[in-house]
Amino acid sequence: MSPALDPARSPVPPFDLVLFGATGDLAGRKLFPALLHRCSEGVIPDDSRIIAVGRSAMSDDGFRAQLRVKLQKAEIKDPAAIETFLARIVYRAIDADDPASFLPLAADFEGVSRVRAFYLSVAPRYYSAICHHLASAGVVTPDSRIVVEKPIGTDLASARATMDAIAEVFAERQTYRIDHYLGKETVQNLLVLRFANTIFERLWSNADVDHIQITCAEEVGLEDRAGYYDTSGALRDMVQNHVLQLLCLLTMEPPNTLDSNAIRDEKVRILKALRPITGADVLTRTVRGQYRAGSVDGQPVKAYADELGRDSTTETFVALHTEIDTWRWSKVPIYIRTGKRMAGRFSEIVVTFKPVPHSIFDRLGADGHLAPNRLVIRLQPDDGMQLVTMAKIPGSGRLRLRETNLDLRFGEQFKDRAPDAYERLLTDVLRGEQTLFMRRDEVEAAWAWIDPIEQGWRERMQVPHFYPAGTNGPSQAIGMIERDGRSWYEP
Amino acid sequence: MSPALDPARSPVPPFDLVLFGATGDLAGRKLFPALLHRCSEGVIPDDSRIIAVGRSAMSDDGFRAQLRVKLQKAEIKDPAAIETFLARIVYRAIDADDPASFLPLAADFEGVSRVRAFYLSVAPRYYSAICHHLASAGVVTPDSRIVVEKPIGTDLASARATMDAIAEVFAERQTYRIDHYLGKETVQNLLVLRFANTIFERLWSNADVDHIQITCAEEVGLEDRAGYYDTSGALRDMVQNHVLQLLCLLTMEPPNTLDSNAIRDEKVRILKALRPITGADVLTRTVRGQYRAGSVDGQPVKAYADELGRDSTTETFVALHTEIDTWRWSKVPIYIRTGKRMAGRFSEIVVTFKPVPHSIFDRLGADGHLAPNRLVIRLQPDDGMQLVTMAKIPGSGRLRLRETNLDLRFGEQFKDRAPDAYERLLTDVLRGEQTLFMRRDEVEAAWAWIDPIEQGWRERMQVPHFYPAGTNGPSQAIGMIERDGRSWYEP
Repeated sequence: MSPALDPARSPVPPFDLVLFGATGDLAGRKLFPALLHRCSEGVIPDDSRIIAVGRSAMSDDGFRAQLRVKLQKAEIKDPAAIETFLARIVYRAIDADDPASFLPLAADFEGVSRVRAFYLSVAPRYYSAICHHLASAGVVTPDSRIVVEKPIGTDLASARATMDAIAEVFAERQTYRIDHYLGKETVQNLLVLRFANTIFERLWSNADVDHIQITCAEEVGLEDRAGYYDTSGALRDMVQNHVLQLLCLLTMEPPNTLDSNAIRDEKVRILKALRPITGADVLTRTVRGQYRAGSVDGQPVKAYADELGRDSTTETFVALHTEIDTWRWSKVPIYIRTGKRMAGRFSEIVVTFKPVPHSIFDRLGADGHLAPNRLVIRLQPDDGMQLVTMAKIPGSGRLRLRETNLDLRFGEQFKDRAPDAYERLLTDVLRGEQTLFMRRDEVEAAWAWIDPIEQGWRERMQVPHFYPAGTNGPSQAIGMIERDGRSWYEP
Repeated sequence: MSPALDPARSPVPPFDLVLFGATGDLAGRKLFPALLHRCSEGVIPDDSRIIAVGRSAMSDDGFRAQLRVKLQKAEIKDPAAIETFLARIVYRAIDADDPASFLPLAADFEGVSRVRAFYLSVAPRYYSAICHHLASAGVVTPDSRIVVEKPIGTDLASARATMDAIAEVFAERQTYRIDHYLGKETVQNLLVLRFANTIFERLWSNADVDHIQITCAEEVGLEDRAGYYDTSGALRDMVQNHVLQLLCLLTMEPPNTLDSNAIRDEKVRILKALRPITGADVLTRTVRGQYRAGSVDGQPVKAYADELGRDSTTETFVALHTEIDTWRWSKVPIYIRTGKRMAGRFSEIVVTFKPVPHSIFDRLGADGHLAPNRLVIRLQPDDGMQLVTMAKIPGSGRLRLRETNLDLRFGEQFKDRAPDAYERLLTDVLRGEQTLFMRRDEVEAAWAWIDPIEQGWRERMQVPHFYPAGTNGPSQAIGMIERDGRSWYEP
């Protein structure tokens, strides 16, 4: 199909995208390459503009020259495509602390009436000032949107303050809070899996599901995020946003429509039904961990404290055990774990079904062992799904059974390149599609569930248990699930 | 695992196998190669004997020389393995019409007390005589078994007569009626699929299943079976045995145990619950077909009548529409079709699930089209299962859906050679395992359902509709299912 005819590649409306933090890491590594891809696919109309904003003075061509070098690392190697893209970019020097530096934007927008998106790829402490200075400069129109990244706050109160500041300038319908996990193919496919098929939804309740596990394991350590990470920790950095978002999409009731608010209404219902972990619950339903020295991929790596340069009680790993107090999910344990310097890089959701009520294969002894059915939804490193079932081992001898996988690897079945999460999210902003962005009440409900855990840890002085880098967390995390007669599923 | 330790390869008890029809086609093409495989796997104890029986006089070595040539076409090329196997074979000339020719067998069995199996790979008209002459020769012991192939009769009365004749000598527990379809891996796997997994059984009823299709399509024409086939036709040759057996295993209630009678009890319950097709039903619920000239695999092929050498009203294709009148399956249509000279060689069961009750993807237009979920259980040409589901087409543009397959091809996941059906069935006989053999009441119940269809065709003079060889039957077969708003599933 030609790009012109392919509805997946129909152009977005002409737009102006103002990208604060254009010289930063995320912009160079993710945002500009994502825009380049969409541009080369014909999705970005010719007369659209990307206004790159940084603090330093620079000419348009000076910025383009810098960016050209960065883009040469992108997948698209065609110099003509890169030049076509660069031609749509201009550069403006703006200092968030200097309202006057915003005024030239007004000239840029003189007489321009179309979608206008402000992407704040900067530290959250600048959000408020930038919003207000944009308003003062008179460039915020009803068709304007603001895009911000996590972290939004470090607890419910600070998140509210941040969102309030933005809300003084931008209405909720203009506000796009990015959780890049929601841009992943498998996450979007969760909606399709559940609601475009009958067979899974029938099994999707406490009648058939024994328990749910969500694991987001990273191999990396602090990288260059020491300053931020040590004030956050695994619970706030990963669980409050990514993990809870996955859990919501996995467990929500069927929305009535695909509308962004219909879906987000259902997600909020799950967040509000999450059983709180309060007081002494933290002792039995949470495990904090922090990596000490170990080895990852055969390479020795330093302890967290050594990377940080000082001792810390921040957790680099957290395991949680909760439940969803609804008719559908009552009494189905939800086990969550996420951490850095774990044994591998993998993010997956595992739905384990109940065992067969009566096994006719018992008399086979070990050959008749029945593992429970599992649906494994993999997000990283490769997107895909596996349905773990029991099958007969071929052969003419005694009946023997084995776990086998009904397999769907998206990369294999679909030959197209798997797009980066930001490609979808950025075009969704420009199209005005909010489904994959967190609504204010979602952010608040997530913090409302996280805060008591943090508070419990403080009150009961729960310092992290050490685990060797390159392992899947402290032994206490294993104990937590094994006490229930279950085990973490290792890929 | 060494063969000695692998329970799948534990030896059967020492035995004598008397194979009538040892110089025939099935013996040379299937039975001896199957025994050779099991022998080379160490399953056949050294002191076991295979007594090959034919009509012509021949020395042991003469028979072995003939068989050696045939076995060289088998997968096992190792001359030593073939010689080891041949050394267990002796040859006896016996004429079914001459009771005296059976007497030397008594000498062979003098003082031998162990499992004794008589395999009748001969025309059914000899069954009765052979059984009685064996009894007269005094070689039928309580540990003896008789093995017979389909066809068992051409209707209920003749099947009963055949079974009665055998039953005068062999008890039901000694009688093994082979349907080689039941020896196929996928068929056995049906039991495991259904009862070693929770997820399928939950979906296995009229609550979730829209309809069931069973197709057994052959590419071949009459081959060298003209004389037999023209007296039988597709209904009696394929549906009465293979297709109904598949349907039983697919739809039966969970048996209480794996015991052969527990399973066969459940199968009989299905056969008895099959809604009869009587009287005028044949006009709407059956379609007979006969192939005329056409092309298969690009080669021109002759019409059935030309292969046969005369006109005939025998059907080479049949399509049926029935239901199972039970609480579980009420109102779930069962569509069956089988024929020769069809568009391909494939046997498969397709369970189509109901559509989603409410689609949130409708507003996507054609991109949101939801195909129903299907479980495709393939028996031929390659064993395997596919779960047809809807998934998102990867990409950053509009949400688009597509059918995708969760795939299980046994050949890929299990590296072992897929054994031929007869390998299992022959060793099951020697082990005394009757599960995969048809019990008398199954055969009777199947004929009791088939007879009224044949009668209806005769009474209403339903001659077959012609279809071009190389197509999937006459257009009336398509009309039959399409009138219900459904379609045959083509692989």
